[in-house]
Amino acid sequence: MMKTKCTIVKIGGGVINNEAALFEFLKAFSAIDFPKLLVHGGGKIASQLSADLGQEVLLINGRRVTTEDGLKVSTMVYSGLINTSICAKLFAFGCTAIGLSGADANVIESTKRPAIPIDYGFAGDIRKVNGGVLNAFIQNDLCPVLCSITHDGNGQLLNTNADTIVAQVAIAMSEFYEVDLFYCFEKPGVLIDADDNESVIDKIDQKKYEVLQEENVISEGMIPKLHNCFQALKSGVQQVRIGDVNCMEDQDGGTVLKLEI
Amino acid sequence: MMKTKCTIVKIGGGVINNEAALFEFLKAFSAIDFPKLLVHGGGKIASQLSADLGQEVLLINGRRVTTEDGLKVSTMVYSGLINTSICAKLFAFGCTAIGLSGADANVIESTKRPAIPIDYGFAGDIRKVNGGVLNAFIQNDLCPVLCSITHDGNGQLLNTNADTIVAQVAIAMSEFYEVDLFYCFEKPGVLIDADDNESVIDKIDQKKYEVLQEENVISEGMIPKLHNCFQALKSGVQQVRIGDVNCMEDQDGGTVLKLEI
Repeated sequence: MMKTKCTIVKIGGGVINNEAALFEFLKAFSAIDFPKLLVHGGGKIASQLSADLGQEVLLINGRRVTTEDGLKVSTMVYSGLINTSICAKLFAFGCTAIGLSGADANVIESTKRPAIPIDYGFAGDIRKVNGGVLNAFIQNDLCPVLCSITHDGNGQLLNTNADTIVAQVAIAMSEFYEVDLFYCFEKPGVLIDADDNESVIDKIDQKKYEVLQEENVISEGMIPKLHNCFQALKSGVQQVRIGDVNCMEDQDGGTVLKLEI
Repeated sequence: MMKTKCTIVKIGGGVINNEAALFEFLKAFSAIDFPKLLVHGGGKIASQLSADLGQEVLLINGRRVTTEDGLKVSTMVYSGLINTSICAKLFAFGCTAIGLSGADANVIESTKRPAIPIDYGFAGDIRKVNGGVLNAFIQNDLCPVLCSITHDGNGQLLNTNADTIVAQVAIAMSEFYEVDLFYCFEKPGVLIDADDNESVIDKIDQKKYEVLQEENVISEGMIPKLHNCFQALKSGVQQVRIGDVNCMEDQDGGTVLKLEI
């Protein structure tokens, strides 16, 4: 039996940080056929709030450590301000959403990252996505909107990478649906030249991905994203696309990723 | 046909402000028979965050005005920090919760309070509680945890009084359940002498409520609470109780309110 298509979208910081871009995105997202699901991080708003509160940002090897204060700020900004605002705006566009952290209905369980060799604080690595619960919301005509806060099942909230969340959620939902995963950011796709928006690579399959890695073409920020994408494709996700809001509604917009094209 | 009992609880600021009291409350709440539902405000945490951010508190006639910045803080603290933490802690106690603002699944629609005669800013008066949606969560074995942020249906979030929310939610749920409404705060019940915790009034019916008002016995802060309670009793709620965490699990603990006793 053919599975129904489900569109899963991740919005990046560049979209969240810009009120006009967020408005355009939410309008376009509302127009996508149901079922669909949205995952978001927090962009620069959390960093700004931390700065306004005089909190120090702790970095190890260039990566942020989630302190107790930092976790509170992330929870307030991701699960509070951004998630709740997005749900209210989506409803105004005719899309009835349900805002979720991983602790809501236990949708995403995670484990605090081991403190050895490096202690990243309250950072969580995903243990389980409860796809059945997410699907129950969808079956009740609700569009899940997930922020990047998860929980360990013992009362502890944890900060979790939104790119990883969306990949794991897409894999879990591919049990029920033919999943089309879309990473929406400020660029029109994966670029050959990071400064040239005309240099979009139309299609990347497993083979091309390996060639691109060997040739060192892909920009550093894109490498973990593409890694997540191919992980998702190997685990049941039908197609991944990467691009900006303009190519979201177009079935072939942005860069299309498949195992074989 | 006899309706199933549903316990609806509101926790006050005094419980939320104190980490140990909140822990005890959540443990006790987890032990209550399902179905149940929790409503919370934000206590002093929102005021503290506003102060930390150097925001001015605007008061008219002693009542707080919700500025744009104040709404952001309320949304972060109520819907983010407190709601998400409560859901994670309840799960650890064996109660699977679903944290909700009024914008989630459109559970509570409100209208911005008219600016005339007094402009209270982004304050919302409840227009509709979607009891059917809340009941669908309960039917899926999820315990709704509602914060005091609602939305107007046009994308605007609004700050709403938590006492009013719980009364309106209790009325909406009494269509499906025999509702026992419990207001949990730091006192053991409605007191004759606000400074004497031994002076709990065991029972208040409609007649006694009128006598207490005439005799000017009730403390000022308790008057709108009791007004909300009798509104709820007149609109289908079976019983209201007011007391502290120790009397929550006891069916007759605290002050019991009924139309006729």
